[in-house]
Amino acid sequence: MNNPFFNNCGPFKISTLVSLDINSSSLVSDLKKNEFLIHDIKNLNEATSRDISFFHTVKYKDLAKKTNAYACITQKKLFHFLPEKCIKISVDNVLLSTALITSKFYPDSTIDNNNYELLDINKKFKDVITGFNTLIGSNVSIGENSKIGHNTIIENNVKIGKNCLIGSNVIIKNTFIEDNVHILDGAVIGKKGFGFIPINSKNYRYPHVGYVHIKKNCEIGCGSTIDRGSLSVTVIGENTYLDNQVHIAHNVKIGNNCIIAGQVGIAGSSILGNNVIIGGQAGISGHLKIGNNVKIGGGSGVIKDIPDNSKVMGYPTKDFRRFIREGK
Amino acid sequence: MNNPFFNNCGPFKISTLVSLDINSSSLVSDLKKNEFLIHDIKNLNEATSRDISFFHTVKYKDLAKKTNAYACITQKKLFHFLPEKCIKISVDNVLLSTALITSKFYPDSTIDNNNYELLDINKKFKDVITGFNTLIGSNVSIGENSKIGHNTIIENNVKIGKNCLIGSNVIIKNTFIEDNVHILDGAVIGKKGFGFIPINSKNYRYPHVGYVHIKKNCEIGCGSTIDRGSLSVTVIGENTYLDNQVHIAHNVKIGNNCIIAGQVGIAGSSILGNNVIIGGQAGISGHLKIGNNVKIGGGSGVIKDIPDNSKVMGYPTKDFRRFIREGK
Amino acid sequence: MNNPFFNNCGPFKISTLVSLDINSSSLVSDLKKNEFLIHDIKNLNEATSRDISFFHTVKYKDLAKKTNAYACITQKKLFHFLPEKCIKISVDNVLLSTALITSKFYPDSTIDNNNYELLDINKKFKDVITGFNTLIGSNVSIGENSKIGHNTIIENNVKIGKNCLIGSNVIIKNTFIEDNVHILDGAVIGKKGFGFIPINSKNYRYPHVGYVHIKKNCEIGCGSTIDRGSLSVTVIGENTYLDNQVHIAHNVKIGNNCIIAGQVGIAGSSILGNNVIIGGQAGISGHLKIGNNVKIGGGSGVIKDIPDNSKVMGYPTKDFRRFIREGK
Repeated sequence: MNNPFFNNCGPFKISTLVSLDINSSSLVSDLKKNEFLIHDIKNLNEATSRDISFFHTVKYKDLAKKTNAYACITQKKLFHFLPEKCIKISVDNVLLSTALITSKFYPDSTIDNNNYELLDINKKFKDVITGFNTLIGSNVSIGENSKIGHNTIIENNVKIGKNCLIGSNVIIKNTFIEDNVHILDGAVIGKKGFGFIPINSKNYRYPHVGYVHIKKNCEIGCGSTIDRGSLSVTVIGENTYLDNQVHIAHNVKIGNNCIIAGQVGIAGSSILGNNVIIGGQAGISGHLKIGNNVKIGGGSGVIKDIPDNSKVMGYPTKDFRRFIREGK
Repeated sequence: MNNPFFNNCGPFKISTLVSLDINSSSLVSDLKKNEFLIHDIKNLNEATSRDISFFHTVKYKDLAKKTNAYACITQKKLFHFLPEKCIKISVDNVLLSTALITSKFYPDSTIDNNNYELLDINKKFKDVITGFNTLIGSNVSIGENSKIGHNTIIENNVKIGKNCLIGSNVIIKNTFIEDNVHILDGAVIGKKGFGFIPINSKNYRYPHVGYVHIKKNCEIGCGSTIDRGSLSVTVIGENTYLDNQVHIAHNVKIGNNCIIAGQVGIAGSSILGNNVIIGGQAGISGHLKIGNNVKIGGGSGVIKDIPDNSKVMGYPTKDFRRFIREGK
Repeated sequence: MNNPFFNNCGPFKISTLVSLDINSSSLVSDLKKNEFLIHDIKNLNEATSRDISFFHTVKYKDLAKKTNAYACITQKKLFHFLPEKCIKISVDNVLLSTALITSKFYPDSTIDNNNYELLDINKKFKDVITGFNTLIGSNVSIGENSKIGHNTIIENNVKIGKNCLIGSNVIIKNTFIEDNVHILDGAVIGKKGFGFIPINSKNYRYPHVGYVHIKKNCEIGCGSTIDRGSLSVTVIGENTYLDNQVHIAHNVKIGNNCIIAGQVGIAGSSILGNNVIIGGQAGISGHLKIGNNVKIGGGSGVIKDIPDNSKVMGYPTKDFRRFIREGK
């Protein structure tokens, strides 16, 4: 992801970056003299030879092996997964160091300040049909034949395609919306994810420099919330429909033609394939992979990966027929 | 239900209606010449001898046997349940054909366009106490001594009784509200249900020509959503209280004196009796029948009918005492 | 709790108070002549020798034994738990009598009427940065460097500290907010709890004279709801973070440094310790005690107390490792 919305204040010397976390007792001391310029912080699979990355759990060892990052923040015990040429930086708390470095590059991304430079939409978009009291940021674009409801706030960093229908009382920021998307009343799209480093007395908010990408022909239900990614994108695939009161956390990627019923929740960084159907109130834990054509019964609690073409139900989930049989 | 809100564009010749679904390979060819005028599309139990109906699952066979419909869209294997005089029309996808015919009769019911002809409420209802920025549709009526909060949008097709209290940031459309009803902040009432025919590349939205009926003395909690029916009514019975963040899907019918705690979800077309008590976060699947005086424990997942006077808990639900015993 | 917001219409003679519930057949007849003035109705542990209290379940017997209340509404079978000097009043329905007496003292607390005396915030708080269409009650105070979003309504009885960030479409009433608190878009804070005496034909709404207290450095997610207490306070401890679509019911008390993920629900009067971590969609029943340093897995349903330092998951919850093992 090349960051489309947040201003990158870099590059910074690597020696500057590794000094940010004063509690990192085990920093490689040699790095303090390293004058190499780091241009960005990115995920393992997106980092280039000018970037720094981070590697905090063995779960991502396959991505670590192939990373092109110049340097990587991690723990000593994970060093051996990283390529030889990658500079390995051992710290006490990988996520805290990552957050501090990201905040250095993108200082505006830790807090969603209210946008006080909104325009009355009618002054700018004379051709867009809008309701009463609709507010819109200065760098927003809206395609032909799209309509916006009443009391809706479209803050900065939003691009809306053609033939979209945005309801009333909606709040959108940091989001790309393709053509023919319907966003229903009261949805909140693009706010920062629920990410922070727990610290007693005052948590450290994790920066969220990503955005939300809603592909064509989607529908997002009333009161649903979709958080933007931290270092990547939260994606809703083409022709995917979300019912009311659904929550999609940061970095989640949902495939095409999915059906997600009311009050479902999907935790951070999980990835869903195409044609996935999820019944009401089901929950999916973070960092999981759900295959193509998977059916998840209403009320299920998914805590492990699910292979393609599975039909599961329960908490934790099991094969659908076994759930029905054992529930008798 | 005689449709109170959506304009019926019929009648149409039956030959016109059966030609709408071009994928219905097995249409009874004789029907192409049938000039009989169909006046409406209705549920099996509401259709008259001038209407067409649909029958898509054996679950409704008892209603099918007694239907008065002139014709019925269904599958060959279900023909024998229908009365002899009823014209049986076999199609590949019953719900798609039903949706296409409903859209023909009620073209405005597939999409909830924003209502751009709202009035500032104070201009119309000088005697109603209202907040700032309250918007209201031109055909809305509001009874004596009812009060409306700030930023609340009451779109077209709403009738509000006496002594009602509507909070702030509420959105209501296509809804009958009887006397003494309280609707709390942020609730969204009367939007179309989450119904569509899944088609890869672009789903077909199912029309929702029904409405919501909230009977007297009810309370609807903050942020709750109640969707209107597709061909029937979504009903909240007298003196029934819903807590915050509850979701009631299309066609659900809830009896009198029910208590529904926070974050409960009830899927489409389920029917609840009187005096039902549901604990927080419980979910009820679609097309179920919950008897009178039923108690459902918090967090339960109900996937089958529950007889009168039961006390159940669990996922799937079992007798309450068994759930407690086995959970130890 | 000395009530900071609702006007106490007392004192009243005890004979007046015990006559309110005409169905209380077993009232101690002698009390009808008792002219002692009762100044307030309070919980067992907060009542002084000038107050009346109530005791409706053996669960609170330890508090009952130590109460200083002058009189207590209860049932005959619970008399022996109360101190000798406490006047014991036996009634058929303890909660109904309590509600009637509370309503006598605080007639404004049963219904959250809309506040129609809101000011445009900019007229009053020239130094506070606010959005468009922000409304604020006449007795609200807002600390230095706090910011308020668009369409947000801050009704009466709210005190906001310094450096707070309140989003858009937020509704707040009857709430103390300390410094450095972030309240995200669409949250509804301080409305009356979901409490009423179920009566067929027309429920009796339980008065909620309490408030919400959000301590410093907290974050409250989008669309979350926090109800105020009935006779006590709903507390969110310091540095506690709530994700989106969380529901916190009346009288709940959450400790410091807690992390509560999306769509969690906590029912009335439960008490959580410090450093509690709760995964997404978990639910906690009412009147429970959750210890310090407890971890509750996503999707769990908690129906009993949990001791300090436990790690639990499931519905009902069991030890985390047992849940994982048995779920295979």
